[in-house]
Amino acid sequence: MEMIPIKTTESEYNVYVGKGLRFRVGELLPKNYDNIWVIADDEVAKFSYVQDVLTSFRKDKSVYTSNIPAGEQSKSFAQFESLHTDAIKYGLDRHSVIIALGGGVVGDLAGFVAATYMRGIDYIQVPTTILAHDSSVGGKVAINHPLGKNLIGSFHQPSAVIYDLETFQTLPQKEWRSGFAEVIKHAWIADETLLFSLMEHVSSLEDMNHSMLQNAIKRGIEIKANIVAQDEKESGVRSYLNFGHTLGHAIEASLGYGKITHGEAVVIGMLFALRLSEKTFPVSFPTERFLNWLQDLQYPFTIISELDIDQLLNRMKHDKKNSQGNIRMVLLEGIEQPTLKAFDEATIASELKVFQNEVNR
Amino acid sequence: MEMIPIKTTESEYNVYVGKGLRFRVGELLPKNYDNIWVIADDEVAKFSYVQDVLTSFRKDKSVYTSNIPAGEQSKSFAQFESLHTDAIKYGLDRHSVIIALGGGVVGDLAGFVAATYMRGIDYIQVPTTILAHDSSVGGKVAINHPLGKNLIGSFHQPSAVIYDLETFQTLPQKEWRSGFAEVIKHAWIADETLLFSLMEHVSSLEDMNHSMLQNAIKRGIEIKANIVAQDEKESGVRSYLNFGHTLGHAIEASLGYGKITHGEAVVIGMLFALRLSEKTFPVSFPTERFLNWLQDLQYPFTIISELDIDQLLNRMKHDKKNSQGNIRMVLLEGIEQPTLKAFDEATIASELKVFQNEVNR
Repeated sequence: MEMIPIKTTESEYNVYVGKGLRFRVGELLPKNYDNIWVIADDEVAKFSYVQDVLTSFRKDKSVYTSNIPAGEQSKSFAQFESLHTDAIKYGLDRHSVIIALGGGVVGDLAGFVAATYMRGIDYIQVPTTILAHDSSVGGKVAINHPLGKNLIGSFHQPSAVIYDLETFQTLPQKEWRSGFAEVIKHAWIADETLLFSLMEHVSSLEDMNHSMLQNAIKRGIEIKANIVAQDEKESGVRSYLNFGHTLGHAIEASLGYGKITHGEAVVIGMLFALRLSEKTFPVSFPTERFLNWLQDLQYPFTIISELDIDQLLNRMKHDKKNSQGNIRMVLLEGIEQPTLKAFDEATIASELKVFQNEVNR
Repeated sequence: MEMIPIKTTESEYNVYVGKGLRFRVGELLPKNYDNIWVIADDEVAKFSYVQDVLTSFRKDKSVYTSNIPAGEQSKSFAQFESLHTDAIKYGLDRHSVIIALGGGVVGDLAGFVAATYMRGIDYIQVPTTILAHDSSVGGKVAINHPLGKNLIGSFHQPSAVIYDLETFQTLPQKEWRSGFAEVIKHAWIADETLLFSLMEHVSSLEDMNHSMLQNAIKRGIEIKANIVAQDEKESGVRSYLNFGHTLGHAIEASLGYGKITHGEAVVIGMLFALRLSEKTFPVSFPTERFLNWLQDLQYPFTIISELDIDQLLNRMKHDKKNSQGNIRMVLLEGIEQPTLKAFDEATIASELKVFQNEVNR
């Protein structure tokens, strides 16, 4: 088991990464909570994970569970309200804790419920996806608005993150791809060695054994924690973590949440950001090699040509990084050298057209 | 104009109290915001206040307005979602500011929208009720759940509070009474001189001239700011500000929000807490004189006997101060000496029965 300590201005907590940790959630809790509320999604409930976690608690605890449908659709106002109703009916108080068991969706939703129930209670992330290595660090929690992703939320730090690598074994390929995308992102913005090591050694997702995965996730968490520590409220360098996300979010929203995974959309967004970086700065990346590698890993690229550019632009304009009507993108002046750059709508529109053609050659 | 500086761990801001300040909102803004979104309620919109505030902004600003129905009913999930939709449609970004123009309902709701839109933007309180002198300091923002008041919310400090005493002149008597109740509460928990001065000199609400009112509000804000500074997240002494609120909230919820004003319900709650304090501690208060004075001011007391005790208890059990199933009440060991005390359900039930009979003699 690896333990990565995370410091924020408001709190300190530990991220635990290892095998079989779902059986040890009870002992790894940072406080002696009386009421424990486990929120899991349907996908997780298919396996024995909820039961495994429940057996880890002492018998004198009051334990409650709520299930939500798997998928981005659950990050809705309706689901948010429904979980609050559960919390009240269970009689939870300010000293209760929420265990968010599942992927990024459960983490974001249960975290936002924790941030707002009685103006804030503790929550613990127990991620079951690779993707959640990203969302479980940094305290960003949110639900979606029909007009844009993650537009309603807060900053609420977890009290611990408990990672069980074994739960990744049951991940569908799409989810593996989705989570692996954020590892790739962390490599581009902060770890050139990791980037080339991944491109070199991972020729299919099955290639990744436990130790490679543990290392990649640990590096991802460290990179993210380091950036978040510098900028908790996302006013500066933290926005670099949005590399690939401006277009990525727009693709997800245009297709309707759930049609493409988050990471699959972000991979397309990263490639667009790399192309735009090469046109904006005197820099050149191995983008052909990168694209070929991603295609071998079966990331879906052709979908970009099916999308309407006006609709994408409209979504990109609602991005939280924007200021004064421009579209702000995270670009790279080099590997490990992210920067923010504002573009007007017309420029992005024409670049998107070029990109659609390029990807479809 | 009085300026009261407020310090919190997260931020510092000023509270301005004076006549005609609604015409000076633009100049008193702490930052040069490009997008300004004024949220007001129907009651405020009846007067020229929205227009008065709008004329205070420089012509080069983009200014948007949203109206909400007056009353506690607006602190709903539906209204919360609807305002977020407005924000997105207006194209507001993270550097925009919300002006919450109105009473506590607008402050709580618009403040919670500010706390959660894009994970938090600035907001300015421009209270038009006496009651809001209380809710506008401390950063507590929330909406209601059908099962309990203020159960969904956050802590989000305003960037300024701008108080125009002139707007109180158009307040209905019920609202005067409601706001004055919180002044009385601040006096009980922290200013014996103010308490006896009010009981001595205020024999009807019309008695209060501008300077008495300005002083009472200033003292109320100072008392509240002092307590909040000691305990921003309401884990300790801040709960003293809930004096009268445990039963008060339950009365409001049992009657259905809007049937009785917040302060009217809190006054009944304070009287109950005083009676319970006298039974719990070796202390005696001028409760008869206090009750007579309040009845002269036309606070409604008989309503308590119409309420079902089981229903009240059920509401009191959902109070955020509770822990481990007990009902925690703020009592007084003496004037200016608040303390927290836990009771079991049966005790509160029998005390409520006694109280119903006492008040109805």
